[in-house]
Amino acid sequence: MATELDLGIDALHARYRDGSLTPDTLVARLRGRIAAHAQHRIWIRMLDEAELAPYLRALDGRGPDALPLYGVPFAIKDNIDLAGVPTTAACAEFAYTPACSATVVERLLAAGAIPLGKTNLDQFATGLVGVRSPWGAVRNAFDPDYVSGGSSSGSAVAVALGEASFALGTDTAGSGRVPAGFNHLLGVKPTRGRWSTRGVVPACRTLDCPSLFALNPDDARRVAAVLDGFDAEDPYSRRGAAVAGRLRAPRLGVPLPAQREFYGDGEYARLYGAALERWSRRGAELVEVDFAPLREAARLLYEGPWVAERFLAVRGLLERNPQALLPVIAGIVEQARGFAAADAFAAQYRLQALARQAEALMETLDALLLPTAPSHYTIAEVEADPLRLNSQLGHYTNFVNLLDMAALSLPAGFTASGRPFGTTLVGPAWSDAYLLALARDQLAAEGFDGGGREPGGWQAAAAAVPPPGRIEVAVCGAHLSGMPLNPQLVSRGAWLVEATHSAPRYRLLALAGGPPHRPGMIRDPDNGAAIELEVWSVPEAGFGSFVAGIPAPLGIGKLELADGRWVSGFICEGIGAEGARDITAFGGWRAYQAAQATGTPQ
Amino acid sequence: MATELDLGIDALHARYRDGSLTPDTLVARLRGRIAAHAQHRIWIRMLDEAELAPYLRALDGRGPDALPLYGVPFAIKDNIDLAGVPTTAACAEFAYTPACSATVVERLLAAGAIPLGKTNLDQFATGLVGVRSPWGAVRNAFDPDYVSGGSSSGSAVAVALGEASFALGTDTAGSGRVPAGFNHLLGVKPTRGRWSTRGVVPACRTLDCPSLFALNPDDARRVAAVLDGFDAEDPYSRRGAAVAGRLRAPRLGVPLPAQREFYGDGEYARLYGAALERWSRRGAELVEVDFAPLREAARLLYEGPWVAERFLAVRGLLERNPQALLPVIAGIVEQARGFAAADAFAAQYRLQALARQAEALMETLDALLLPTAPSHYTIAEVEADPLRLNSQLGHYTNFVNLLDMAALSLPAGFTASGRPFGTTLVGPAWSDAYLLALARDQLAAEGFDGGGREPGGWQAAAAAVPPPGRIEVAVCGAHLSGMPLNPQLVSRGAWLVEATHSAPRYRLLALAGGPPHRPGMIRDPDNGAAIELEVWSVPEAGFGSFVAGIPAPLGIGKLELADGRWVSGFICEGIGAEGARDITAFGGWRAYQAAQATGTPQ
Repeated sequence: MATELDLGIDALHARYRDGSLTPDTLVARLRGRIAAHAQHRIWIRMLDEAELAPYLRALDGRGPDALPLYGVPFAIKDNIDLAGVPTTAACAEFAYTPACSATVVERLLAAGAIPLGKTNLDQFATGLVGVRSPWGAVRNAFDPDYVSGGSSSGSAVAVALGEASFALGTDTAGSGRVPAGFNHLLGVKPTRGRWSTRGVVPACRTLDCPSLFALNPDDARRVAAVLDGFDAEDPYSRRGAAVAGRLRAPRLGVPLPAQREFYGDGEYARLYGAALERWSRRGAELVEVDFAPLREAARLLYEGPWVAERFLAVRGLLERNPQALLPVIAGIVEQARGFAAADAFAAQYRLQALARQAEALMETLDALLLPTAPSHYTIAEVEADPLRLNSQLGHYTNFVNLLDMAALSLPAGFTASGRPFGTTLVGPAWSDAYLLALARDQLAAEGFDGGGREPGGWQAAAAAVPPPGRIEVAVCGAHLSGMPLNPQLVSRGAWLVEATHSAPRYRLLALAGGPPHRPGMIRDPDNGAAIELEVWSVPEAGFGSFVAGIPAPLGIGKLELADGRWVSGFICEGIGAEGARDITAFGGWRAYQAAQATGTPQ
Repeated sequence: MATELDLGIDALHARYRDGSLTPDTLVARLRGRIAAHAQHRIWIRMLDEAELAPYLRALDGRGPDALPLYGVPFAIKDNIDLAGVPTTAACAEFAYTPACSATVVERLLAAGAIPLGKTNLDQFATGLVGVRSPWGAVRNAFDPDYVSGGSSSGSAVAVALGEASFALGTDTAGSGRVPAGFNHLLGVKPTRGRWSTRGVVPACRTLDCPSLFALNPDDARRVAAVLDGFDAEDPYSRRGAAVAGRLRAPRLGVPLPAQREFYGDGEYARLYGAALERWSRRGAELVEVDFAPLREAARLLYEGPWVAERFLAVRGLLERNPQALLPVIAGIVEQARGFAAADAFAAQYRLQALARQAEALMETLDALLLPTAPSHYTIAEVEADPLRLNSQLGHYTNFVNLLDMAALSLPAGFTASGRPFGTTLVGPAWSDAYLLALARDQLAAEGFDGGGREPGGWQAAAAAVPPPGRIEVAVCGAHLSGMPLNPQLVSRGAWLVEATHSAPRYRLLALAGGPPHRPGMIRDPDNGAAIELEVWSVPEAGFGSFVAGIPAPLGIGKLELADGRWVSGFICEGIGAEGARDITAFGGWRAYQAAQATGTPQ
């Protein structure tokens, strides 16, 4: 179902390389698409040709090899600054024109991406519906009678309708996930502090995250790599080491059956069940968990003192010109006046206790697998019942930022009438890369060929790149899967990357001593063989203690793999040959051990 | 200046081992000491013989080899629970009798320590003076006319007067440091969340830390090791990896001269200058830094919404029986009513920005070196001007918990009339072990022989034990001090532990290739020599990436040192010998390189 203009990054770069497209011709063609979707109310402001020119000219003479996002068009939610263009947060009276772009925008521009303009949102990012804007309700990409989801509504629909390759949103209570679910996109809600909030209009400063809508996991990974990195100018920016669970047969938490809330939407309930079944068929272990503590955290956000943060964000305008806010938004932020400082601290205490419960829960799981939203409503339904339905849409998203978790919404099917359904993987802080790897595997197995209404042509075969903060180590003996020392890897959050062989340049020795009985790899280019290995991906933070626990004569150096790559792996001092037996002929430790066990003549 | 009853842990254990003392006889002798100091108002409640008996009987048949704190007597600030004994927080109307001990107490009891009773404090730990208690003002151990410092007043004076080997305090704004400074003790203010607060009466729950008073750094290290460890029952408990700076020639931040505030106390000013000079003479680099952001954080605590946390801690009592609180305490906590939730969040935003500034500052330093308190007042002076003088005492301590830092107060001399002066090392979160190592070195160099008025007999020569979360690695080539790859160690927070040699069982090769030119150690028991090495202590979290960066044929395995210990170190695959030159005769890489440089005939 490839289209004539595929906005996936690989597809664009291929066409830039073969000369069948240039950034200028791309932008001209996108203008046509954008004009055709005017009724969707996606944009608050498009850049005109004069405004776009400097960005396009900066690409002259460059190319995809020099700039990772060369010529990739993107949309910016209008609560994120683009230098020289007003930021409105969907409130004309609030607007200001920033001199500098937000850090996230700056990084994308420096990587060669093209900013198309600023997108519509629920005013001050306060909403999950996409209806609360003076610029009009944003219409869903698949059925314009339905809500787009919000608050990052315009950004999501821009990507879903093929107007941009990706888009920036923000996410405090679900604003980067709910619209992804309703528009068949990947919605990346990073760990708090992973992506800078400098230049982003605050909603709840202690919780806000920039977010990303992407067509496929590889695009998400590439854009995320550009956005990643500490920002000294954002007080809430953080550094953290990647954490990860199992990539094969993950343990995924799902709510107890009685806690699966779809507010009567039988079709979404059925789609969630089908999604669980697909994961299960591929080997995931589904674990029913008590969703109640997570719901309690969610209620703290909606009913508790955090609304004082939204109040602080608009306090000046509220005092100067209270009519400037939509009545629904003003009504929400005015609730802040009912909370004392003691209420704020008391709620933070309760949240801390819930966070501890959630942490204990997550230690037993690799991730949660939830519906992104429990149901989907028409614009008319939301306009008739704006607060209750909005609140329901956050059922499975609200707690995530409060509890310092990472999340990723991914496409998971369609209703009978063709509206998308999304599921969300939720993991602990800094599990972002792992969640994306997990989603990538699942989507590839499901035959996913790109998100949005105009698929972006996801190259499922694109080479996997190891997530940051991990080290690949080749093991050849008792650390192999199922062998006695393998738990040293698994307990450090390692996962198996591949079973392979060394380059044909090693002798394998069964060392003297033990148990545990141990082999040693001795490099011998002239007289060696290919030895069976496994490559494991180990979190960097746990690798040091792993190395320190290895007794002589073994250690960790570099091993050459069959495909010519050199990775960290077990090496052996020359003195290890003393009293050892050459078992190269077995081809690997597993075969040698099997022969020992069965008493095969040697 | 050893005394007839030395309460240092080593000294006690030596006497338990030679039979000249038993826990029972020790406790009996301590009762005499304690009775003699009644006018110091140290104790709110001593355990009687019947209450002590179960703890003493639990030691029967055990000994120092089985229990790390076997028979070591300690005092407990009376805002920390000891099962079956009332906790008062220095407010009789607040008192309750807990069924369980606080986690920190439980861990000490399990390690064999003997709880003597509950000590006096500034009511609800609200104060830095030790004067605000219905049980009377705690008198300084060195001059009873002077304040003890607070709020952990009784605990500090108990240790200083030789009534206990160590004591538990708490520290929110300086309560574990100011009394250490005024009583010639080590005051350990750990990283927030390092030691559990379960069973501790809250002051400001988001900031509170249990703290420790000890006679010497080795005792502090031993007790800290027992207290360390995550507590799933404390929502504010945290896990963290140790961070460290340089142990030799540390870069220590000191306030700009104009910002050195002693409120007119010329003697304290002079003592601080002398302390700086002693550090400087031993090679520390003193760096003048702007103290203003730290002071601003301190003011947030005293003048901002955090007082709402103290209000929450006593709200029930305040509503039921407002007369139960001392007027000075009631006056402070009632200020909470003036702060709205929005004020709390706004102050947290400001604090976060200051924390970022402090973090950037600390990246340029190994630690701050500050006076513990700017001056010292008599009890009469404080009673005449209770709020202003109390606030002044926190000048150098208030900001530390807010900014998530670790601190250690250490003895630094005496005034002409014999009152103690203390300095405080302040480092980033999880630098606790490093700060203690730094203090230990400095105190040893200064000839410190134990804190308190009855010194605890610090064995300066006690074997150093590597701090947790670090790995010792032996390097023999380009990673040696001053060599080209040494920054790979230093940039990871490594420090040099010792310059030494390998066991005389290695050949040293100059490997083919380079630059960088690299040596390889080849184990050869029959024909080897002792090779010059350096042992570096590397934070565990950074060791993995260090190992992963080492190219073949080298790697990290285990090396045998001259003293017979095996530590992690550089090993070399046998194939490294190809094209290499045997340089064993040079005795080390440094000598070989020098010979190369000078063209010494070979």
